[in-house]
Amino acid sequence: MQQLPKLTAAPTIKQIRATHTAIQPFIHRTPVMSSSSINAITGAELFFKCENFQRIGAFKMRGGASAALRLSDEEKQRGLATHSSGNHAQAVARSAQVLGIPAHIVMPSNAPSIKRAATEGYGAKITLCEPTLQARESTLEKVVAETGATFIHPYNDYNVIAGQATAALELLEDSPTLDIIMAPVGGGGLMSGTAITTRAISPQTTIIGAEPAAVDDAYRSFHSGQVEHNETTDTIADGLRTSLGEKTLGIIREHVSEILLVEEQDIIEAMRLTWERMKIVIEASCAVPLAAVMKNPEKFAGKKVGIIITGGNVDLSKLPF
Amino acid sequence: MQQLPKLTAAPTIKQIRATHTAIQPFIHRTPVMSSSSINAITGAELFFKCENFQRIGAFKMRGGASAALRLSDEEKQRGLATHSSGNHAQAVARSAQVLGIPAHIVMPSNAPSIKRAATEGYGAKITLCEPTLQARESTLEKVVAETGATFIHPYNDYNVIAGQATAALELLEDSPTLDIIMAPVGGGGLMSGTAITTRAISPQTTIIGAEPAAVDDAYRSFHSGQVEHNETTDTIADGLRTSLGEKTLGIIREHVSEILLVEEQDIIEAMRLTWERMKIVIEASCAVPLAAVMKNPEKFAGKKVGIIITGGNVDLSKLPF
Repeated sequence: MQQLPKLTAAPTIKQIRATHTAIQPFIHRTPVMSSSSINAITGAELFFKCENFQRIGAFKMRGGASAALRLSDEEKQRGLATHSSGNHAQAVARSAQVLGIPAHIVMPSNAPSIKRAATEGYGAKITLCEPTLQARESTLEKVVAETGATFIHPYNDYNVIAGQATAALELLEDSPTLDIIMAPVGGGGLMSGTAITTRAISPQTTIIGAEPAAVDDAYRSFHSGQVEHNETTDTIADGLRTSLGEKTLGIIREHVSEILLVEEQDIIEAMRLTWERMKIVIEASCAVPLAAVMKNPEKFAGKKVGIIITGGNVDLSKLPF
Repeated sequence: MQQLPKLTAAPTIKQIRATHTAIQPFIHRTPVMSSSSINAITGAELFFKCENFQRIGAFKMRGGASAALRLSDEEKQRGLATHSSGNHAQAVARSAQVLGIPAHIVMPSNAPSIKRAATEGYGAKITLCEPTLQARESTLEKVVAETGATFIHPYNDYNVIAGQATAALELLEDSPTLDIIMAPVGGGGLMSGTAITTRAISPQTTIIGAEPAAVDDAYRSFHSGQVEHNETTDTIADGLRTSLGEKTLGIIREHVSEILLVEEQDIIEAMRLTWERMKIVIEASCAVPLAAVMKNPEKFAGKKVGIIITGGNVDLSKLPF
């Protein structure tokens, strides 16, 4: 397995290309799909990069692998660690499995059993904790102290960002003449990686983020210049409840043109439209950019728009329709 | 648009290949997808031909186009007609739209409004009738008498079968070394087309059908040699409630090795597994072959198995999970 150098600054396009080559054993090349009926509805020409078909069901696999491959042999032997109840947990667990090293995942005790089972299925050791951020962080500290494993942050880490940046690399290879590229904004790992890749290889493409109005921390951070937080996390887009980090905020402010906000009902409608017309299972979080296109038709009319569909890990017992 | 000759006998592989070329303006080339986790669960290596991504969301587009292209210019001008509340209605409507000719669709008055809207969206003229087979047939007769349109049967028609046969043609091009090929059996149009193609270009491949035990007419017809009917049509696999026709039964008895039966709960589990692991929206009918694989592991262990996923037109408000 190829070794990559640790990154101490935002990745360059050369480093992103090297990352893409190195993480091949961990990832699928996902398809770019279109829907003539959704194009007719929106008046735009949309290109969906389907990371719901990615290994572990989400783009997070790219960042997890990118970070894991930068550890020294000694660090690798001690293993990977993170706290997460979602896709990042599975990405770290699967990366460790491919490398044949341990993974230690701290999960809140109320994490869905299906996500816990999936993470255990990749051979990770789960440590349960109270469902608070404080408990997650203190439990992780303890696990790291005991095991010597390396903490892989879900987004505020240049080594992770370099991996997430490879989704846009593939999208722009397959659809090289995009007028606009969009991603949903949670912690900002995907958005900042997408921004660096796009600015480097397709300078004429406008970079736009989309976020639920109910958790508009990224929108506010984008305008204030400092990391803002949410009072509540009451959105169906459960992948977008986190706040930006300093690193992702800096990259986003440098390259992204704007962050569009959408209401919960718009997200549910866009999610349902994608399921019905494209016949693909996507998380609510991925429907946020399409919802923004549908709410702002004048901005997107006649444009070629790339949208990164981030994942498809949905609890089918809890659908909003 | 290419004209095709009318078929008066089961299509040959040469005629199927010519059909495939002629219907290109009507169809997508759909992908063949795999899932390492479903392979691990079943112990087989499964190749899913994803006709849920086909135009109108189902393989029926192939047969509709194949039949439409065989009409004379004069017949075309008078238009196409059928009775259906499902995918065949949309296939006929869309074929007529592409050819710029009229389509007359008889639908039961209780057909889901979303299906009616989709069919009207392709420009078809809808005639509603009482929700009985008798009313559908008598209303269709009246529409045909008034308009001179040509009735396109949903399955018991060699011109339709030649189109459905092209799905296996693509599957066997992309996955040429299948040990087994499977399709669900409703009216038998897809199963008989799949059988002819497979026997011609991959003689070593075993051909297996799958059917809900609740509507086991094809299983009984396969063994008795005559068209059997169902007492009830109480299955979630709403695409498989119809009985075989004389033409499809003859082809199936000639080429198919066996028809496997599965229970309703097995269908729901296989459907849910496909949504969860493959992140694709499929109709309950398409889950029937996978359910048969899961119930008969000894038959499929270690085998390369092609499965035709027939469609993805699902009412998201009425999911069984």
